[in-house]
Amino acid sequence: MDNTYDVIVIGAGAGGVAAAIRAAQLGGKVAVVEEKKLGGICMNAGCVPFGHMMAASRILGDLGFAKEMGVVCSSISRDMTTLLARQQELIAFMQQGVKTIFGKRKITLITGRGKICGGGRVEVNGKPLSAKAIILAAGAKWLQPDFAGSDLPHVVDSDYLLDAKEPPKRCLVYGARHWSIEIAQLLNRFGSKVWLATKEDAILHDENKTIRSRLAKVLQTQGIALLTGVKELTLKQRSAAAAEAVVALKERRETLEVDLVVAIRRAASLRGIGLQTMGLDERAGSLSVNERMETGVKGLYAIGDMTMPENRHYSHAASAGGLVAAENAMGMNRVLSERTTARIAFTSPQVACVGLTGIQAKAMGYEVITGAAPLSMNTFGMITAQTDGLVEIVAEKRYGEILGLHIIGENACEMIGQGILAIRQEMTLEEMAQTSFPHPTLSESIAEAARDALGTAIYLP
Amino acid sequence: MDNTYDVIVIGAGAGGVAAAIRAAQLGGKVAVVEEKKLGGICMNAGCVPFGHMMAASRILGDLGFAKEMGVVCSSISRDMTTLLARQQELIAFMQQGVKTIFGKRKITLITGRGKICGGGRVEVNGKPLSAKAIILAAGAKWLQPDFAGSDLPHVVDSDYLLDAKEPPKRCLVYGARHWSIEIAQLLNRFGSKVWLATKEDAILHDENKTIRSRLAKVLQTQGIALLTGVKELTLKQRSAAAAEAVVALKERRETLEVDLVVAIRRAASLRGIGLQTMGLDERAGSLSVNERMETGVKGLYAIGDMTMPENRHYSHAASAGGLVAAENAMGMNRVLSERTTARIAFTSPQVACVGLTGIQAKAMGYEVITGAAPLSMNTFGMITAQTDGLVEIVAEKRYGEILGLHIIGENACEMIGQGILAIRQEMTLEEMAQTSFPHPTLSESIAEAARDALGTAIYLP
Repeated sequence: MDNTYDVIVIGAGAGGVAAAIRAAQLGGKVAVVEEKKLGGICMNAGCVPFGHMMAASRILGDLGFAKEMGVVCSSISRDMTTLLARQQELIAFMQQGVKTIFGKRKITLITGRGKICGGGRVEVNGKPLSAKAIILAAGAKWLQPDFAGSDLPHVVDSDYLLDAKEPPKRCLVYGARHWSIEIAQLLNRFGSKVWLATKEDAILHDENKTIRSRLAKVLQTQGIALLTGVKELTLKQRSAAAAEAVVALKERRETLEVDLVVAIRRAASLRGIGLQTMGLDERAGSLSVNERMETGVKGLYAIGDMTMPENRHYSHAASAGGLVAAENAMGMNRVLSERTTARIAFTSPQVACVGLTGIQAKAMGYEVITGAAPLSMNTFGMITAQTDGLVEIVAEKRYGEILGLHIIGENACEMIGQGILAIRQEMTLEEMAQTSFPHPTLSESIAEAARDALGTAIYLP
Repeated sequence: MDNTYDVIVIGAGAGGVAAAIRAAQLGGKVAVVEEKKLGGICMNAGCVPFGHMMAASRILGDLGFAKEMGVVCSSISRDMTTLLARQQELIAFMQQGVKTIFGKRKITLITGRGKICGGGRVEVNGKPLSAKAIILAAGAKWLQPDFAGSDLPHVVDSDYLLDAKEPPKRCLVYGARHWSIEIAQLLNRFGSKVWLATKEDAILHDENKTIRSRLAKVLQTQGIALLTGVKELTLKQRSAAAAEAVVALKERRETLEVDLVVAIRRAASLRGIGLQTMGLDERAGSLSVNERMETGVKGLYAIGDMTMPENRHYSHAASAGGLVAAENAMGMNRVLSERTTARIAFTSPQVACVGLTGIQAKAMGYEVITGAAPLSMNTFGMITAQTDGLVEIVAEKRYGEILGLHIIGENACEMIGQGILAIRQEMTLEEMAQTSFPHPTLSESIAEAARDALGTAIYLP
């Protein structure tokens, strides 16, 4: 068998799969090397299973609201085994789908750990392969949490939920990013008593204050105890089942008795794939690439989580990078714009943001103009009781160019594409203000937020 | 009291309200004349109550799917009285909201029938008013259905549902447009046995075949009997409660026993408002306006349902027209683009379309290129079992300019804004193909449909 390829992709997650298919589509002879599971974290332990669990969580949340509408479920049972079995089937089905496409595109899938060993050369299971271009897509890994007692058996990462038979009675979720918030909400809805603790002063601390404080309020209303600004966390064993978590907040010290701590900390996965053979630093936080996804080493590209800090670990960023890397590897000339990578949380309500926050825009020297439209003033928002929803728009004052869109509300993740397109196509506030979205939808509030920024809101009192 | 205004708006529905607020915002002294209820059909008998009922219907639909995910409601009760009471509260709240904005903007709301009586003059309850500009926003009305026996007490329009205590046991819904389909699905989910009959050869007959045939399939799976191409319908009284509907289909004749027939037929509301005093024809199908919303008579504008055929009766078209008419009435210069008016159905799955279908584009002389991405191949589509969902994109071949977007799937009405912006900003297939939508969302299929049109679909086998 000929071990020479046009493109070798290391890692078959969301980024690697997209890169491989695109390179093959462009006529390349392509191999993909994957050590663990086809589909990577996204398909096996991230977007797919958690997207699925959050879809179930959302329906459970809807039931409370349904009651107000006369639809009453007097007896609700929740069965995590059925939930997890369905998502295992989904994952198997999706993996088969990728295999079918790989087969059709004549992409070779090699199981094993891929290690670069100098320019254009990769070793898998002791066997040498070579290629004109290598695309690194090794993703991210969970890190040991950084608090005292994090080595106790009570401490788990999100993988725990992939085969949990039932929710823990009392659970501390430790983390400020969307993964942690989603898990906190899921467990709460499946019956756990949940504390959500963050080292940072707020959940989703990178996002606009209006968005994150509204989400915090909703979580608390739903019964999740929020402990932000936890400067110190110490875990002690109390029994095989229970642990004692001592949580030091800014002003006070609290002791919680919990059965489980879910702590999520991620980092780019750089070690052990031979980066040093190319003169790259495997101990860096992430691998630097330019907008063509080039590492600086000729013929070596990198995409996805391994090229980004934790707050940009989104599989859509990986797959978008994969397409760009594949095209450049095959001789085209494409660049990726990071400005239009959405940041999302599959909570209820969902959060979806794209582009700059007001603070970020100011820091970049823009004269900033913002507008907001609460969903409590939106027709569909009123219909579906989106009391805490909001659309916020950020623009620069001179031309009115839209720089950011920030949404908290049901289906924000489907609405945010409108912000992505607006930023991508350099739309102005004026253009957005004049756009007619269908009635009654939450999207109408995007136009109203633009009008608010211009001082011409129609439906805001 | 001074009865001279800058702008008089006749009709306080979705269009009239938007027009009045915008004109006042621009400094105009504004009066709105409304004969019936503030908010018009949209707020009182259309978008709001039916949007609300379809939200309840959607949750009921989700419960079937939830079972597969381990969330089981063993006993579901449906109480239409609670549902209708909540929407009455919503409507009252929204009307109060409009009144508050009117108060703040010093807009005079006059109750009564407004009649034009020559240039710049309106009469309400025998009192004369005058204005520099008049904006007609009288909306639409229900028509008597056009079949034999349509005068029987068993025949109702959609208003019946606004205070129905319980769903009918057996119901024939007659109509091919979104209103009828929504009602058929709602009644089916609230326990009625439902037949949906259309004179036309298909439901949503103006839309792409792929979209409408998928919706038809879903409705049938949900237990609605679909009778398309009903050339003749005859209703006979059987008892006070029941009627016999003889339905003549193309090939056969069927007799159904039903308790109720919901038949919806609408037309622009042109009569009795003094159009003839301006030389306009009140017997026309609808009132012609240009893209500035001008009727051709100086200072006389018209917007919304009264200016459009039945298939364009959408309140977002009315409110968008209202803003344009108000700005032009106040001396600005704005035009409305009809190309970007979305056409939607709040069914489950939802349908949302904007721009041209392939057939329409060909008829206009374009060399057409289309692409499609089934939601059964989309990650979130698989998660939420969107088996029959689809995104279809229509473009012209030369530049790849996007001409239409057609979606059937959950939340299609929130996704269609992406098509509206794409058409508005003259995006190309190439640009859409390179757009990164968040994962996992249905919106990703918009990019995949664009790639499919270009022959570069990534995830389609």
